[in-house]
Amino acid sequence: MAIEIRPYEINDWPSVWPILEPVFRAGETYAVPLDISEADARELWTVAPELVFVAGDDGGEILGTYFLKPNQAGPGDHVCNCGYVVSERARGRGLATAMCEHSQAEALRAGYRAMQYNLVVATNAGAVRLWQRHGFEIVGTLPAAFQHPTEGFVDAYVMYKTLIGASSG
Amino acid sequence: MAIEIRPYEINDWPSVWPILEPVFRAGETYAVPLDISEADARELWTVAPELVFVAGDDGGEILGTYFLKPNQAGPGDHVCNCGYVVSERARGRGLATAMCEHSQAEALRAGYRAMQYNLVVATNAGAVRLWQRHGFEIVGTLPAAFQHPTEGFVDAYVMYKTLIGASSG
Repeated sequence: MAIEIRPYEINDWPSVWPILEPVFRAGETYAVPLDISEADARELWTVAPELVFVAGDDGGEILGTYFLKPNQAGPGDHVCNCGYVVSERARGRGLATAMCEHSQAEALRAGYRAMQYNLVVATNAGAVRLWQRHGFEIVGTLPAAFQHPTEGFVDAYVMYKTLIGASSG
Repeated sequence: MAIEIRPYEINDWPSVWPILEPVFRAGETYAVPLDISEADARELWTVAPELVFVAGDDGGEILGTYFLKPNQAGPGDHVCNCGYVVSERARGRGLATAMCEHSQAEALRAGYRAMQYNLVVATNAGAVRLWQRHGFEIVGTLPAAFQHPTEGFVDAYVMYKTLIGASSG
């Protein structure tokens, strides 16, 4: 499958929400209220962030999405934050990898120097491994910082990748 | 000096802004735009957070302020975040200690299980030591995550304190 990633457009929402909703409702990976309204989810994912993208196959079907935004303001605004979701029926087809690589290129293009994930749930081992393979390091462990629906209070990781070394900028 | 801490009231803003403004303008400790407008600062400090307090001496003068809010939503909303600022002319008089202790009691009262500081600038050694004395641990180091006005890109710490142990709740 050829994966195509392009900027989100407002008309994409009806294709994006069915990808996000089961992930938010499951409450296993994202620090989002499990009962979040569609309107609030739309604000969270597509309005508040600086950049939003959708990923699809070469037939044009949307199978994943990610956002990119500054993780902090002012003296912290050179570090960005991203969130990625892949459609449940498109897992294992390389979309997360493609979006992760794409987001790093976009981050550099937008002038960011580093990327930080604030709350990677420790039980989400597949994601942790994936980010590690892409050069992200676990720089911190937040004890019992995430309430998993079946595992209870579980640790979460802060993961970080320097995109531009201190010596080059 | 007896320190009194009470909930922020809307009429306190003219006393609070002169405490926040020099700290935000200096850009040495908070990830806030150095040129933030008074209106945006007011929103950031007194509207968006769940709880806001002011600290003063027994004469009623306001010399410090802090906010308390959930650090994440949904499955992460049992961890709170606080920000504290002490007036430059009241440093070394125990206000930060008093506000830190007060905030932990308020956090417990509001049902939080832990407190997290997301970006404690490494060069702000006094603050790091103070939080450590109050039981906060450096659980992560964010490389070059803060652009200090004179030191350049410096590390920042994620600091965390469990308020309620896993065995007690």
